[in-house]
Amino acid sequence: MTVRFGLLGAGRIGKVHAKAITASSKAQLVAVADAFDKAATDLASQYGAEVRTVDAILKASDIDAVVICTPTDTHAELIEQFSRVGKAIFCEKPIDLDVERVKACLKVVDAEGATLMVGFNRRFDPHFMAVRDVIEKGEIGVVEMVTIVSRDPGAPPVDYIKRSGGIFRDMTIHDFDMARWLLGEEIESVIAQASVLVDPAIGEAGDYDSVSVMLSTASGKHATISNSRRATYGYDQRIEVHGSKGAVLAENQRPVSIEVANASGYTRPPLHDFFMTRYTDAYAREISSFIDAVESKSPASPSGLDGLIALALADAALTSVKEGRAVKVSDVTGALADKSVFQGR
Amino acid sequence: MTVRFGLLGAGRIGKVHAKAITASSKAQLVAVADAFDKAATDLASQYGAEVRTVDAILKASDIDAVVICTPTDTHAELIEQFSRVGKAIFCEKPIDLDVERVKACLKVVDAEGATLMVGFNRRFDPHFMAVRDVIEKGEIGVVEMVTIVSRDPGAPPVDYIKRSGGIFRDMTIHDFDMARWLLGEEIESVIAQASVLVDPAIGEAGDYDSVSVMLSTASGKHATISNSRRATYGYDQRIEVHGSKGAVLAENQRPVSIEVANASGYTRPPLHDFFMTRYTDAYAREISSFIDAVESKSPASPSGLDGLIALALADAALTSVKEGRAVKVSDVTGALADKSVFQGR
Amino acid sequence: MTVRFGLLGAGRIGKVHAKAITASSKAQLVAVADAFDKAATDLASQYGAEVRTVDAILKASDIDAVVICTPTDTHAELIEQFSRVGKAIFCEKPIDLDVERVKACLKVVDAEGATLMVGFNRRFDPHFMAVRDVIEKGEIGVVEMVTIVSRDPGAPPVDYIKRSGGIFRDMTIHDFDMARWLLGEEIESVIAQASVLVDPAIGEAGDYDSVSVMLSTASGKHATISNSRRATYGYDQRIEVHGSKGAVLAENQRPVSIEVANASGYTRPPLHDFFMTRYTDAYAREISSFIDAVESKSPASPSGLDGLIALALADAALTSVKEGRAVKVSDVTGALADKSVFQGR
Amino acid sequence: MTVRFGLLGAGRIGKVHAKAITASSKAQLVAVADAFDKAATDLASQYGAEVRTVDAILKASDIDAVVICTPTDTHAELIEQFSRVGKAIFCEKPIDLDVERVKACLKVVDAEGATLMVGFNRRFDPHFMAVRDVIEKGEIGVVEMVTIVSRDPGAPPVDYIKRSGGIFRDMTIHDFDMARWLLGEEIESVIAQASVLVDPAIGEAGDYDSVSVMLSTASGKHATISNSRRATYGYDQRIEVHGSKGAVLAENQRPVSIEVANASGYTRPPLHDFFMTRYTDAYAREISSFIDAVESKSPASPSGLDGLIALALADAALTSVKEGRAVKVSDVTGALADKSVFQGR
Repeated sequence: MTVRFGLLGAGRIGKVHAKAITASSKAQLVAVADAFDKAATDLASQYGAEVRTVDAILKASDIDAVVICTPTDTHAELIEQFSRVGKAIFCEKPIDLDVERVKACLKVVDAEGATLMVGFNRRFDPHFMAVRDVIEKGEIGVVEMVTIVSRDPGAPPVDYIKRSGGIFRDMTIHDFDMARWLLGEEIESVIAQASVLVDPAIGEAGDYDSVSVMLSTASGKHATISNSRRATYGYDQRIEVHGSKGAVLAENQRPVSIEVANASGYTRPPLHDFFMTRYTDAYAREISSFIDAVESKSPASPSGLDGLIALALADAALTSVKEGRAVKVSDVTGALADKSVFQGR
Repeated sequence: MTVRFGLLGAGRIGKVHAKAITASSKAQLVAVADAFDKAATDLASQYGAEVRTVDAILKASDIDAVVICTPTDTHAELIEQFSRVGKAIFCEKPIDLDVERVKACLKVVDAEGATLMVGFNRRFDPHFMAVRDVIEKGEIGVVEMVTIVSRDPGAPPVDYIKRSGGIFRDMTIHDFDMARWLLGEEIESVIAQASVLVDPAIGEAGDYDSVSVMLSTASGKHATISNSRRATYGYDQRIEVHGSKGAVLAENQRPVSIEVANASGYTRPPLHDFFMTRYTDAYAREISSFIDAVESKSPASPSGLDGLIALALADAALTSVKEGRAVKVSDVTGALADKSVFQGR
Repeated sequence: MTVRFGLLGAGRIGKVHAKAITASSKAQLVAVADAFDKAATDLASQYGAEVRTVDAILKASDIDAVVICTPTDTHAELIEQFSRVGKAIFCEKPIDLDVERVKACLKVVDAEGATLMVGFNRRFDPHFMAVRDVIEKGEIGVVEMVTIVSRDPGAPPVDYIKRSGGIFRDMTIHDFDMARWLLGEEIESVIAQASVLVDPAIGEAGDYDSVSVMLSTASGKHATISNSRRATYGYDQRIEVHGSKGAVLAENQRPVSIEVANASGYTRPPLHDFFMTRYTDAYAREISSFIDAVESKSPASPSGLDGLIALALADAALTSVKEGRAVKVSDVTGALADKSVFQGR
Repeated sequence: MTVRFGLLGAGRIGKVHAKAITASSKAQLVAVADAFDKAATDLASQYGAEVRTVDAILKASDIDAVVICTPTDTHAELIEQFSRVGKAIFCEKPIDLDVERVKACLKVVDAEGATLMVGFNRRFDPHFMAVRDVIEKGEIGVVEMVTIVSRDPGAPPVDYIKRSGGIFRDMTIHDFDMARWLLGEEIESVIAQASVLVDPAIGEAGDYDSVSVMLSTASGKHATISNSRRATYGYDQRIEVHGSKGAVLAENQRPVSIEVANASGYTRPPLHDFFMTRYTDAYAREISSFIDAVESKSPASPSGLDGLIALALADAALTSVKEGRAVKVSDVTGALADKSVFQGR
């Protein structure tokens, strides 16, 4: 079976997915939709696809699956629409910035029995996957402490910040998902502290640019997240897991692995400049995993519930900062959290 | 001038200091006291010193300074006694497990104008000193986020745990001091989470073995501390400082820097087995710094106030765990914190 | 312009090039030829190309360039044939195992003004390219000593060994090319030693499996090459260049950059398993560079002369081993070496 | 038993040994001799020793062993004199620059049954010792290829060069000894190339500053040595051993293990500035090993024969450069090489 794709949104990340789809021998990019005609036309012509409207894609009999790369505030509506017409859906995170809206959307997905995968690309990074393999093979025993460092090379424009839902929902959300994925147990409590150190304009927009988060699970496992909107040395993406029998870590990645030595010392180049180059392999594997799920009619992972829980953790972190206290996650996710996200691993 | 020393306590750490004193061309080990005769005799004879009682050392005219390595519950009393007879004092941390007792002790030290140095040995580790040099030279700009990982290779006996004042006062206290030393600004707020993952007996003794701590300063700087009482891979001691212009980190140390490659991969040996081998150089430099302070009649650093503040941070962390909230440090240190510990830098 | 390709040889390396050609937006794979019908058919159908005979490709008006991946003993003849019909030629190394035969072939190429590129893929490895960039920017001053370590994970079958021309012409030839490329100056003298340490059958076949080579240039620069047909830890591929102002090195590559720590130490995974995974990027860039040369009608590099000189160095190394003496390269290359290979850099 | 020492030569390396002797609980520095009174007096007074003449030390009944740190041209004579009076001898390398003179000297040592140890300090470096441990435990199988890189941070004064016996006898001699020690088999053949790249004045003095050497043993094992008299990045001292089951390497050492990251990349400090700081531990362990040998009346290692063979290898290398051919070592060492240096391991 060839999975026939419609792509919604021909921006930066849409291009990444278009490339991944066309590189797969099991998939075909049939149509591209974008509010900007030229963006859609350029991308479609590059890969031999048609330009269509979202409506046309909804009704198309020659399309099995869609990839949603449109602005965040359209995600939930699109997921619901495509669920109802029986198409498989890959949606970039987040489903929505509002937990209640996400819950409503997931009820539709659930009722329609739709296949929905959420774009937590880091789960598909080969280095992070290797870390998880080590954990699953029991090589480090019982996981006890997860440490995640995630720093962007520079802050996005304040306009972006204002629409982003804030650093916890925009940036830390990836780390919340990674923490859950590595802990292998649901997070029970969130404590966070946040400040504005990079750019006062970010503070004026009501957001933070430097945050630290601590998470704990029912059995007492810890995770720590350190985020900054600036790292002069590149896109800093590290994970480390300490367990009862050992530890495992994924090192930072750089474009080339050389070292120059002189009287100033031994210098390796800066890290990747951002996620497009750092997670090239992850994006390809992510779409490949979605294609496999669609082809085999098996559940896609990370699921909509994974998206919801990460968002709920972001909300909890924000509450923790504002109230200076540990926030229980059950306060936020409610009944949905009962459906273990780990069942499908 | 040769600084003439009396050593109180001939146990493991007492031996380290005896060696450092005798290796210095500016110091002489004159007398050793210990509750166990044989311990005192063995150490004294190795270095050509006399065995004396604490009282005799207090009254001795041929002794300028003492090094206190006796059990913790004797520290404050000894500091007061030796302050009153005008001898310079180096005391292993902590001064006492009780903040009020420490404050009372420091008032005596202050009133007598005594020289008091507290044994935060890590400040003298050459790698950590190099990190601080980088910060002080402005190479990483303004310090924003300090990350400290500190894990012991294995848990101490439960008997030790019971007398230790708990993990925050016994183990994390070193990291609190490092965090202050690296942040260059007083800590305002402490949030901590703690659990028992290593040994249930530690929990039964009322303590924790796995803790995570977040600290923040008035200007919004963060520090994160990760502690465990167990690390199969050795004594894990890392610091990392992220600033506005860059970052600096100190790598873990191992006894030998070799790597063996075979079909299983590339393997470097485990880390140092514990603090005695990891901080050999630091202990020597620490005593050397104390000798310099005594000789030049300048203030010793880290001071008694440094000891007090680290203890207060430990207390705040414990309160944070118990109450699930951020704890302001001013609640704990009160007026004393006004005397900036950084003045003497 | 789209460069239209014929692929001669649909084996392992042919597949690599087919993939690279089809991934390029400037090239098209038109036809595939292989002595084994099924190999040609499988590869052609995967990429929508036709199966044709070599003769048909020679005569085809819809083919601009060929990639020669057939057995070594057919290379020279094919290069001559395709030179005469005006098609651009990319040929896997070596052109031939016999220096005189290569010279004869290159005379034809020269006479026909054909575009010929020889497959020294390592020149296109991003890490090695970064090393050369550092050199060309003058960051390490004048190059003085080049060190190349190149070890295969395991020995090839003895049947392969017998047809290979021996380790110097089959394996070290890549390192000879790298040495020239990094030294930036022609090699004048070759000294080598060789032994059979891996497998006696290799010795019985008249070859060696462990060799060390030293090269020197007229100005006194050195290069050292260390080869083994076995490395339990993976495909060991390192270069290091020491110059008057500093040094630069390219580290070994592994599929994933993780590290596992436990009581046995800190272990990173083995290296890539062989050239197909180690040089994936290099193969893609190599064909891309050839396409650019064909498209812009500019000389391709590495050239036929580069191929000849590397072969001559291999011959010199063999003579050195047999006679226990330094061998001047001018003895081997003769007049052709006057045409500086560096002119086109 | 306390080994009572006379120190001949109070220069830079004499001071290192004086410190090591006095730090040992099994040794005592009794007397110091030096042609410069002030040098002897300063060192003697620092460690509570007496100043004596060499003659007085020869006749002294309170001296068991001597450390010879005088100029090279006095070594052989002093060894003979102290052998005849039954004192144990530690002598800095080389015994003499002339192989025949060394042989004559060793005959005296042999006839007198004297204890003689030669100062190949690198054998006592903890990192290199760990490499050898890995080999001896069989972890890398049969040793096949040893790679040694040894580069000085800068060239010595030309005056020193002139008296040094040339780079092979002065600098490479350490690497010859390391190669033998790691190969575990005598070297049969030496090939070398040498040039002047660092300083023309070195060439004018008849010496080289950049050399590459290849060694081979009867069973076909290889060793490669790369030397330069200049390395802007510090004292470059690496060894690597490749065997049938794996490889082991010792990394370069630096004073502090920190890394600074910024927009220029990740920078670690330069290496140690020279042998005094790089081999501090090695010098201490070396003297300690000598003390143990004297105390236990067991043979000291490295022996005089080790010193002779390393010198013979240096001579062979020089011949190889001058004649452009592989030189058999048996040509140089003759009958003495029959006494396996490895017997005492």
